Amino acid sequence: MSKIINVKENGNPIYDIRIENDYKALGSVLRELGTSGHRVCIVSDTTISAHYMNEVVEIVKDYSSLVETFTLHPGEEYKNLNSVQSLYKYLIESKFDRKDFLIALGGGVVGDLTGYVAATYLRGISFIQLPTTLLSMVDSSIGGKTGVDFDAYKNMVGAFKQPKAVYINTSTLKTLTPRLYHSGFGEVTKYGYIQDQPFDAWLRENVEALMNMEPEALEYMIYKSCDNKRIVVEEDPTEKGIRATLNFGHTLGHAIEKLMNFQLLHGECVSIGMVAAAYMSYKRNMISKDDLDTITETLKKFELPVSVNGLNADMVVETTKNDKKMDAGKIKFILLDGIGHAVIDDTVTQEEMLEGFSYVAEQLD
Amino acid sequence: MSKIINVKENGNPIYDIRIENDYKALGSVLRELGTSGHRVCIVSDTTISAHYMNEVVEIVKDYSSLVETFTLHPGEEYKNLNSVQSLYKYLIESKFDRKDFLIALGGGVVGDLTGYVAATYLRGISFIQLPTTLLSMVDSSIGGKTGVDFDAYKNMVGAFKQPKAVYINTSTLKTLTPRLYHSGFGEVTKYGYIQDQPFDAWLRENVEALMNMEPEALEYMIYKSCDNKRIVVEEDPTEKGIRATLNFGHTLGHAIEKLMNFQLLHGECVSIGMVAAAYMSYKRNMISKDDLDTITETLKKFELPVSVNGLNADMVVETTKNDKKMDAGKIKFILLDGIGHAVIDDTVTQEEMLEGFSYVAEQLD
Repeated sequence: MSKIINVKENGNPIYDIRIENDYKALGSVLRELGTSGHRVCIVSDTTISAHYMNEVVEIVKDYSSLVETFTLHPGEEYKNLNSVQSLYKYLIESKFDRKDFLIALGGGVVGDLTGYVAATYLRGISFIQLPTTLLSMVDSSIGGKTGVDFDAYKNMVGAFKQPKAVYINTSTLKTLTPRLYHSGFGEVTKYGYIQDQPFDAWLRENVEALMNMEPEALEYMIYKSCDNKRIVVEEDPTEKGIRATLNFGHTLGHAIEKLMNFQLLHGECVSIGMVAAAYMSYKRNMISKDDLDTITETLKKFELPVSVNGLNADMVVETTKNDKKMDAGKIKFILLDGIGHAVIDDTVTQEEMLEGFSYVAEQLD
Repeated sequence: MSKIINVKENGNPIYDIRIENDYKALGSVLRELGTSGHRVCIVSDTTISAHYMNEVVEIVKDYSSLVETFTLHPGEEYKNLNSVQSLYKYLIESKFDRKDFLIALGGGVVGDLTGYVAATYLRGISFIQLPTTLLSMVDSSIGGKTGVDFDAYKNMVGAFKQPKAVYINTSTLKTLTPRLYHSGFGEVTKYGYIQDQPFDAWLRENVEALMNMEPEALEYMIYKSCDNKRIVVEEDPTEKGIRATLNFGHTLGHAIEKLMNFQLLHGECVSIGMVAAAYMSYKRNMISKDDLDTITETLKKFELPVSVNGLNADMVVETTKNDKKMDAGKIKFILLDGIGHAVIDDTVTQEEMLEGFSYVAEQLD
């Protein structure tokens, strides 16, 4: 089993996403990219590194002049400019030049940070994504968004920088905690809701196979997710238009994530945010009550939270105003116009958001 | 008097360089760019700000929803990530979003730093260059290189980011110190040496008019310099090839700049570096002794240093190894193959560089 998705920019192929269930084909990817004769630094975190670093180093050393490793503490709280500066320092001391490579081995934090360093070290060097979490496989490793948090602001500092390759080894999902695995379904299910109704139907039919990580179901799910993301970012690489639909569930989700001090995972907050946004769509008569309930039930089946407790609704709505998606003071909110179709709306009021949030805040009672 | 140069990327127009002798046309530039209804932050340093900030603010406020100003301490030592982070913080607190604008009002430090923040704040916002030094007018404001220093490494952290417009008010040169004005000729004369022999001849004929800042001569000099840079960056926007020729005089120049702890100005170090590189070209029989002497004499007429004292030659050559222009351990050195023609050479030895540096180190005796 193995699948390849070719990603284009302005019609020109820029990189491949390869979906495998081991690292056996990584050597041939490196050979094609021409890493031989150059330095490679593999960036990871201590958790992921313990599982996969040795195996990856063994492969990379045959296709490079020097392999260095740089290991972060795990967690969003280390996705900041301090970690970025430590990595700059390490690369300078190891004399990395413009033709050398970075490899991001890990989840979204490792990928976003490594990509940002690749975008800004010497005005840009090449990097490769080896995502090891479901969330990074289906979302953050694709599309060229890189960045770090600044103060409490998520991804406030960043750049668009495309990887040279994304290599997904689906077997790495087995070492994730169940909670981390499930949180990835926040982004997976999103593709169904915003643009791929058949995928939503398929997901609902295959909940059990996916929760059991059955290889074929897993591969298909990751393939379809990546391909859905590819379609959007090819059409709108720098988020001038349709790419904003990927933000479904994220406006309130980000606010919840921030106010919970990152105690809820990103995919979990997106799940709660999607239920709120679906409710707001329902209240505008854009989707039916059945659609809303199906969304909620599906997310529950993937063990995702659909409600949150202990947050002040006004504060949540106030926090959305710091969202990066602001445009001259207006929020581009994503609503559903039916399962499988998202719309970008800049007329959503504070009251609607308050109502949307109250809906998810009340689920616990 | 007024001149406009249109800069293209892949054949498409991306921005204009406007050369004026006042700020009267700035309003119409802002109108064309559509700044109205958006926030604008003017970044400057205390020296430049004292001369021009009020005048620029008065114009910008008619074409924006809010004008903020951010003033740095002057000097290369503030071109670092601390200043970048202070500016991020200021923009976040002023709720700048992706549609808002930055304006860089100042020399190379202000322009490079503002451009870098524009490249990385929210993954990129628009910026406009208002260069006020000769060096920034003819070199750093054009071509999209942005960046800051990291530890002692110049421009180690950066990004390619094109401005939306470059507006040059040549009358701002009058408030420069003579030394700062003269240092700009390091980059101006370079264009003649690497690719424009007639411009070199014109410069030599107009030394007096240029030293006296006669308006017509000044405008022509800036126009020709910008246009020479445009030609190179259009052909090679991200420095894969010919753009490296702009580095003439810079390999040894940067090393000297660094070892002198930035007590010599950039243009002054480039001047010394160009004499060394010209000498190395002469020793390879690529230019005549007359050519070498003419270069040296011309630089002297523009009050530029052609020698340096107190540096250890081995250390200078060692320092070139940290140059960003390294390519798999090899330096791409720029030599002259006649006045008006540069060549990129990766066979230059340490011994040749030692000899080149010794030539400029001995001039003082």
